[in-house]
Amino acid sequence: MHVLLHRPLPPGALDRLRQIAPQASFRHEMRVDAQSACLEEAEVVFGNPPAAALANRERLRWLQIVSSGFDEYAALAGGSVVVTTAHGVHSHAIAQQVVMAMLMFARGQLHFGECQRASKWDRNPAVPFRLKGQTLGFVGYGLIAQELASLGSALGLRMIAVKRTPGDCPEQLVRLSDLSGLDELLAQSDHVVLTLPLTVATRGLLDARRVSRIKPGAYFYNVARGGLVDEPALLARLQEGSLGGAAMDVFAQEPLPPESPWWQAPRTLVFPHIAGHHRDLGADTFELFAENLTRYVAGQPLLNVADFARGY
Amino acid sequence: MHVLLHRPLPPGALDRLRQIAPQASFRHEMRVDAQSACLEEAEVVFGNPPAAALANRERLRWLQIVSSGFDEYAALAGGSVVVTTAHGVHSHAIAQQVVMAMLMFARGQLHFGECQRASKWDRNPAVPFRLKGQTLGFVGYGLIAQELASLGSALGLRMIAVKRTPGDCPEQLVRLSDLSGLDELLAQSDHVVLTLPLTVATRGLLDARRVSRIKPGAYFYNVARGGLVDEPALLARLQEGSLGGAAMDVFAQEPLPPESPWWQAPRTLVFPHIAGHHRDLGADTFELFAENLTRYVAGQPLLNVADFARGY
Repeated sequence: MHVLLHRPLPPGALDRLRQIAPQASFRHEMRVDAQSACLEEAEVVFGNPPAAALANRERLRWLQIVSSGFDEYAALAGGSVVVTTAHGVHSHAIAQQVVMAMLMFARGQLHFGECQRASKWDRNPAVPFRLKGQTLGFVGYGLIAQELASLGSALGLRMIAVKRTPGDCPEQLVRLSDLSGLDELLAQSDHVVLTLPLTVATRGLLDARRVSRIKPGAYFYNVARGGLVDEPALLARLQEGSLGGAAMDVFAQEPLPPESPWWQAPRTLVFPHIAGHHRDLGADTFELFAENLTRYVAGQPLLNVADFARGY
Repeated sequence: MHVLLHRPLPPGALDRLRQIAPQASFRHEMRVDAQSACLEEAEVVFGNPPAAALANRERLRWLQIVSSGFDEYAALAGGSVVVTTAHGVHSHAIAQQVVMAMLMFARGQLHFGECQRASKWDRNPAVPFRLKGQTLGFVGYGLIAQELASLGSALGLRMIAVKRTPGDCPEQLVRLSDLSGLDELLAQSDHVVLTLPLTVATRGLLDARRVSRIKPGAYFYNVARGGLVDEPALLARLQEGSLGGAAMDVFAQEPLPPESPWWQAPRTLVFPHIAGHHRDLGADTFELFAENLTRYVAGQPLLNVADFARGY
């Protein structure tokens, strides 16, 4: 069994993997492309190689990626390769990134940050507002939204959500409905957070019509995928001043080019797709891979198997 | 009874006050100084007039201020004037301001904010770190710290505190001790938050020796009063790179002059004493004054009477 490790590894990682799978040969290779010979023989791959490099790899059986979203590997759907994701490894960090952005808006930090850079003491008291009692609307209600809801409770937010397959309404929410409740959520929420995966069914879900339904003065957060929202329509609302602000971690085009108007969009925080990052991420994803390799060797079901039909 | 209202008032405020105290005459005057004639006749003052303007005002019986700290009115200690504070009205906002700063440090926002301003997509994953499991140390454990502890629990922080008169250790804390535990707290905490009032006993509490005890790489937050900490010593630690960062809402000299080195201090957030501000503050403090005026007229004990001996 050939295992390709296409990730930086924590100290001692190779020794641990060899203990888990003594019969396997491990290759640690950061340079992987469509012509890569090391992919030819790999049965197991750890990391996110370019999707194009995985076409027609007949020996490949299992791909453990380090992201939660797997939309870029859609071509593997229905094939013989099992894809497992890093679902859950990023959710804590992403929830904190959203709360940071929410507090930066609530506390007027975009204004006060500018004052600091201008060495200007300006106590304009009209800027900060209270989160308590405001409505936070989740579009998608998976792990990230659930982590965020715990923090939202502590901040005194009223919370509602829509998701594709709603079950019983969790205690922390006032309402949980299916996607038919989306327009109503957009009209009601002071803060709209996108956390659902990008699939054929969700691409363009927030089209120009729906973007126009977002409540005037509301704040918009995208920590999911750029393809979910009509970005020009959203940018136009920010530029015309009819939204309170936006925090964007993901974009239809990444990296965002230097000439993108998003960098200078008013009342907007732009993050370079880092909401899920933290210093321990490498260690955490390696632990997940080690656990899944143990299961793989023992023929047991793997954790976090990507469901291409559902998109998560 | 003459009542001087030295504050912007919400709509309908005067009518409400006249219902509460029909026998009183109200004067709404924003310009109050040491020579002010309107202070001469006032029995009740609502607002924070300059302390010097209150000297030898023989008719003054009650001053309702709109701040929690009352150190600037120390000259009234032991006299016949009762001072009531806005204790509690700001604590929710201040706690959120500290959490915002904590998350900005944890999520690397000082770095990513610079990248945004430079239109630069930089996903350096080494920057953000996890708050979960880190230690938050409170110097002072009143309402602000208690609000912050609720949020700290949701963020997974381990919390310890010192205060002058510790009782039983609250459930959210690992340890609560008196000020003799301060050096130990400074050495252990990843985040040190100052929330105690400025009194004769606490002035300079964090002197240069104690500032040197703050754990290398730790983050420091002052949302209390500038006079509590040796600012040059703290600034030196930031400049030499031995602290993770600082968030400073208060300073020994306010407003901070344009030439202050704090504006350009590395890894530092400077706020213009706005941690307690929010849009509803005027309404909230007016409600408190209306409640206290009702009690004053009825001869009942007032809320939030300043205890000059304890300092809060």
